[in-house]
Amino acid sequence: MSEVPVAPEAYRAYLQELRRNAPKVTRGLVLVYTGDGKGKTTAALGIAVRALGVGWRVAFLQFIKGPWKSSEEHIVPLFGERWLFRKLGRGFTWEHDSLDEDQAAAQEAWQEARNVLLSGDYEVVVLDEINYVLSYRFLPVEMVIETLRQRPSHVHVVCTGRNAPEALVAFADLVTEMRKVKHPFDQGVLAQRGLDF
Amino acid sequence: MSEVPVAPEAYRAYLQELRRNAPKVTRGLVLVYTGDGKGKTTAALGIAVRALGVGWRVAFLQFIKGPWKSSEEHIVPLFGERWLFRKLGRGFTWEHDSLDEDQAAAQEAWQEARNVLLSGDYEVVVLDEINYVLSYRFLPVEMVIETLRQRPSHVHVVCTGRNAPEALVAFADLVTEMRKVKHPFDQGVLAQRGLDF
Repeated sequence: MSEVPVAPEAYRAYLQELRRNAPKVTRGLVLVYTGDGKGKTTAALGIAVRALGVGWRVAFLQFIKGPWKSSEEHIVPLFGERWLFRKLGRGFTWEHDSLDEDQAAAQEAWQEARNVLLSGDYEVVVLDEINYVLSYRFLPVEMVIETLRQRPSHVHVVCTGRNAPEALVAFADLVTEMRKVKHPFDQGVLAQRGLDF
Repeated sequence: MSEVPVAPEAYRAYLQELRRNAPKVTRGLVLVYTGDGKGKTTAALGIAVRALGVGWRVAFLQFIKGPWKSSEEHIVPLFGERWLFRKLGRGFTWEHDSLDEDQAAAQEAWQEARNVLLSGDYEVVVLDEINYVLSYRFLPVEMVIETLRQRPSHVHVVCTGRNAPEALVAFADLVTEMRKVKHPFDQGVLAQRGLDF
């Protein structure tokens, strides 16, 4: 696959004009997508696209590192520096030998996410699968909430993953539980590239 | 706002290469996102982006016409003919005087959607808010299911909206209920452009 032609002139100008006309965030919200159903990361991706459409900047930060390049990564470069898409930490696959190692890896990932949140450079910051990390106590939820409190007020944050901790649900502005009613994997249908990842 | 620079050479070539390498759909699925929580249309938008990322073609068909241009529409043209984004019917805002008029408008919208589904031109077809239309019986659910049965087998379909009818849930491969746990509108926070629409 050839490289994406990053930001040719015409697109750069168009994106810059979107940016100039971007609405100010009146009050940054904390959104939580949780539950055992499909659609959590997918909805966060939809939020990202909508935000890019009004000229906002988006940081999509992944706490779980997939074994291959996700489908959506192929179009990220079309948006130049407007869309930061990043797997956090180094080789952070949650297959460590001890809780200590998991916690150390989580801390490292969290420092990156924290810097992005506090920088105020992105109107939307997605913390993909952070609920999973929190529910296993790899990170203390109080620390994450403290940073959410400190963040610049124009920053929307989206937290995805199963088992969002109660304290995060209490702190959030919007919480949706994606509840599994029916899932094709249960009928033996395998995940498909382009649809599921 | 200036026009989007539709498909300059470098991007056209990149998109064509994605298309050449696009995975074949092994079995097209029917996905349903329903429930009273936020994230249904948003998740469908995420599906669209992921599909575009592997070179598939996407038709995003809206059964409810918003009063203004959605944020995501600003980036649709970046994908050229790969992404069809369309409000169905003419002035189809569900503010008619009689059930007859609603049904006639729904039929008109459905004919457009049906043609797109049966053409096989798009690997992913989103029928945004169709559940709403079905739940009000503006369209008979059996007719929609019959078309889903007839569609080419390489077509994934995503149906969004509250109150998905039981027959559609029974027919679908994947069903997620987006359940509202907490919603900022309940606390007096207004919908924001870029985030909610």
